[in-house]
Amino acid sequence: MKLTVQALAQRLNAQVEGDADTLITGVSSIEFAQQGDVVFAESPRYLRLAERCSASAVIVWQDAPSIGKTLLRVASPRQAFLEALRIFAPEPRHPQGIDLNAVISPDADIAEDVAIGAGCVIEAGARIGQGSVLYPLCYIGRDVRIGEQCILYPNVTLMHGARLGNRVIVHSGTVIGADGFGYVTVDGVHHKVPHIGTVEIGDDVEIGANVCIDRAKAGVTRVGSGTKIDNLVHIAHNVQIGENCLLVAQVGIAGSSQLGRYVVLAGQVGVADHVSIGDGAIVAAQSGVAGNLPGGQRYFGSPAREHAKQLRLMAYTSRLPELFERVRELERKLGSSSEDRNE
Amino acid sequence: MKLTVQALAQRLNAQVEGDADTLITGVSSIEFAQQGDVVFAESPRYLRLAERCSASAVIVWQDAPSIGKTLLRVASPRQAFLEALRIFAPEPRHPQGIDLNAVISPDADIAEDVAIGAGCVIEAGARIGQGSVLYPLCYIGRDVRIGEQCILYPNVTLMHGARLGNRVIVHSGTVIGADGFGYVTVDGVHHKVPHIGTVEIGDDVEIGANVCIDRAKAGVTRVGSGTKIDNLVHIAHNVQIGENCLLVAQVGIAGSSQLGRYVVLAGQVGVADHVSIGDGAIVAAQSGVAGNLPGGQRYFGSPAREHAKQLRLMAYTSRLPELFERVRELERKLGSSSEDRNE
Amino acid sequence: MKLTVQALAQRLNAQVEGDADTLITGVSSIEFAQQGDVVFAESPRYLRLAERCSASAVIVWQDAPSIGKTLLRVASPRQAFLEALRIFAPEPRHPQGIDLNAVISPDADIAEDVAIGAGCVIEAGARIGQGSVLYPLCYIGRDVRIGEQCILYPNVTLMHGARLGNRVIVHSGTVIGADGFGYVTVDGVHHKVPHIGTVEIGDDVEIGANVCIDRAKAGVTRVGSGTKIDNLVHIAHNVQIGENCLLVAQVGIAGSSQLGRYVVLAGQVGVADHVSIGDGAIVAAQSGVAGNLPGGQRYFGSPAREHAKQLRLMAYTSRLPELFERVRELERKLGSSSEDRNE
Repeated sequence: MKLTVQALAQRLNAQVEGDADTLITGVSSIEFAQQGDVVFAESPRYLRLAERCSASAVIVWQDAPSIGKTLLRVASPRQAFLEALRIFAPEPRHPQGIDLNAVISPDADIAEDVAIGAGCVIEAGARIGQGSVLYPLCYIGRDVRIGEQCILYPNVTLMHGARLGNRVIVHSGTVIGADGFGYVTVDGVHHKVPHIGTVEIGDDVEIGANVCIDRAKAGVTRVGSGTKIDNLVHIAHNVQIGENCLLVAQVGIAGSSQLGRYVVLAGQVGVADHVSIGDGAIVAAQSGVAGNLPGGQRYFGSPAREHAKQLRLMAYTSRLPELFERVRELERKLGSSSEDRNE
Repeated sequence: MKLTVQALAQRLNAQVEGDADTLITGVSSIEFAQQGDVVFAESPRYLRLAERCSASAVIVWQDAPSIGKTLLRVASPRQAFLEALRIFAPEPRHPQGIDLNAVISPDADIAEDVAIGAGCVIEAGARIGQGSVLYPLCYIGRDVRIGEQCILYPNVTLMHGARLGNRVIVHSGTVIGADGFGYVTVDGVHHKVPHIGTVEIGDDVEIGANVCIDRAKAGVTRVGSGTKIDNLVHIAHNVQIGENCLLVAQVGIAGSSQLGRYVVLAGQVGVADHVSIGDGAIVAAQSGVAGNLPGGQRYFGSPAREHAKQLRLMAYTSRLPELFERVRELERKLGSSSEDRNE
Repeated sequence: MKLTVQALAQRLNAQVEGDADTLITGVSSIEFAQQGDVVFAESPRYLRLAERCSASAVIVWQDAPSIGKTLLRVASPRQAFLEALRIFAPEPRHPQGIDLNAVISPDADIAEDVAIGAGCVIEAGARIGQGSVLYPLCYIGRDVRIGEQCILYPNVTLMHGARLGNRVIVHSGTVIGADGFGYVTVDGVHHKVPHIGTVEIGDDVEIGANVCIDRAKAGVTRVGSGTKIDNLVHIAHNVQIGENCLLVAQVGIAGSSQLGRYVVLAGQVGVADHVSIGDGAIVAAQSGVAGNLPGGQRYFGSPAREHAKQLRLMAYTSRLPELFERVRELERKLGSSSEDRNE
């Protein structure tokens, strides 16, 4: 795909400043920009970074200052950038049709334009909606529901009864609907608790590679629409995740915990069981959430505290050598006996 | 399955208090109870919670106080609850028979009533015991031994020589018997150490999804009978895990470490190599075990300390701002010079 | 394989001290040594350990002191040990030939002596080099390049365009080339950023089980030659890893971060995005790397600090109860008011 800045500006409803004949061949974030790319900047800071990168043109806000590059002025640079991404994104080349080497139960209900790759196994009662694509070697259990326009990459496992909404993307190696980790211990023996619940994934959810989302003991483990999950995340039985959350890689959420909407858990965060995290809470990497967290705030640490407070504690901790020295000095002045503690 | 409280009481050897004709349709933990469910309470605290939930009847101890619900009095509520779980658990619907789309070496030894799903690949010398079920797309390497009544969910990989006891459950995506992480570095080149050992899993072990249990360099990586392992756990070469341990999600155990019996590692715990953890030790979430831990105690922190001591250190740490203030105050009184340190 | 010490010494260019007729049947690390094994010691400390183990002979440096075991004296014990490992390592028994149950695009380019197991799916444009082995149930996407003498264990997923060098080993369940975790949020909706980049793995890389290495947004996610990666590691889009690094289990590296050569990240370490770690840096287990780290040093903690400094802070932290006591004592002497704080 190649467009002049002029042609691109027309599609983005943008005003051009600079050379309208410049050829645009791709879209990039500033950090990876090459000649021919268009990037976007929505603040003076990013505008300065954009000026120094190799991009050929920059999408900016209406009254952004001029820089030494061709500009496309728009009402919302972010919105226009997203539109440009779509214009330049290469057409995805997914599998098409139903491969003869797939093993599909005659009692499965497959919409007509679904693609199913070689080596897929689809059990009775499964239902797959229009336009969905299953790459090779996926397992679709009994009575699973997959909505429309979903993409399952190779080696995905959906256990019986799991339900996916529309436009859900699941990357390779991910397992949805395994039994949760639940036992009743009697006389020293751990007896397995049957898991008779299921898993429900909303619309527009993307799930990374090698993720585990367990089925509920009873009821439903739920991931709300618009939520995005990175690689190697663990979501235990009966967890409830709201809409539009972001769960970064290697996060683990223990049983029955609840996340509101727009919650962000950064990489390697752990959440204890039966904990509730409010809308819009942001938890920094490697934190451990042991109790309920009200929404709308940033948290950090293990146990997770209000972010600024944790930073303050960390700063104080790093000054402990100085504090010990100061106390020693005070003791010297007062003739205390602690000096023979042999520090 | 539907039973009157009367009929259920007979099977649990329980005495009924309240309406013996109430219909029971399921078993639940208190937290998910709905009308028609029976729950159990083995302490006054849980009895109060049970009273407020939607369950129709409660299994309680012999002289538990009356509440506003039908009671089933038994000697051991936990034991009776387990029995009720079994009565009401739906019959599992596993694959049956050997699918024509499985690829099975003529030199594998498969007991007569084994189920093998489509797309499974079973190598020469593998032996699979009576009543075991392999869901589709599992790989069973050369000379693997699988005991009786095991369940392997889809996409499980058992590498050559791995041995599973009886009634072992392995969830999807789990890899047993990959090479451990071992190299000899000569002149800046990391040379792979051949891993000629294997993995041995005892009876009644359950292993979650996307778990990794590596084969030994020499000898055996061992998981003791009755141990339960959650999702995304890493168990390195030559680790020895005792009986009836519980390893929660995302735990990692480095090479040659040993766990006794009934050890509990909570979520995201890391254990260093060549460490020994005694019987019954309980390690709290996100802890890091860097040295040996005697059994019978609770531990917490990174590095893991005795639990109460770690809580105390955390409490003190959270009071550091106050301590700095108090030292500043002391310095002021003594006319010390630290005030110009510009805090 | 059986060799007399005499015969082994000839192949290692070693001088024998002791019984040259002793039969050697294997090679072992000291910790797992049994009768018949040869071990190596390159320092007095390991020599003492070797003396107490069950090995029948020890490879030592030229002027090592005598012990009560047969010795093989060489210029480089480590080099000779590596040679012995190769002499005694059992011939690996990988699959051979192309299984009829593999599904291979006619537009894939497979060298003549490649092995491809049952259930593998290989897409158009894939190219697989001489001597490479694919265990069953692997997925090789469109235009993937696999070099010579590679080994892919069962259930590996290589997404379209991924490139592997020569002699690369990939263990089961690993996913290379899934989309990275990248969204543009407009009006509360997280829109997926197309990932048009790829992944490039150098020569002699080994990758553990259930690892995730994401494709770049644009450009390349790169793992340098000679680097070894343990199980359950996450490597995000656009990460650049140098040569001969060691990444231990459950490490996570966020987007666009860069590791130099010979970097070691111990288990469960997390690295934030856009961070740079210099050549030869060693980061201890469970650390969190939030900013750039110069090479050639050891680091520890979350946030990761210079190793000795972190140990010092941890020592001080463990003495906080004492420090609080000392401050209380000083306050008592000075008649301060803090005693009514009710500690």
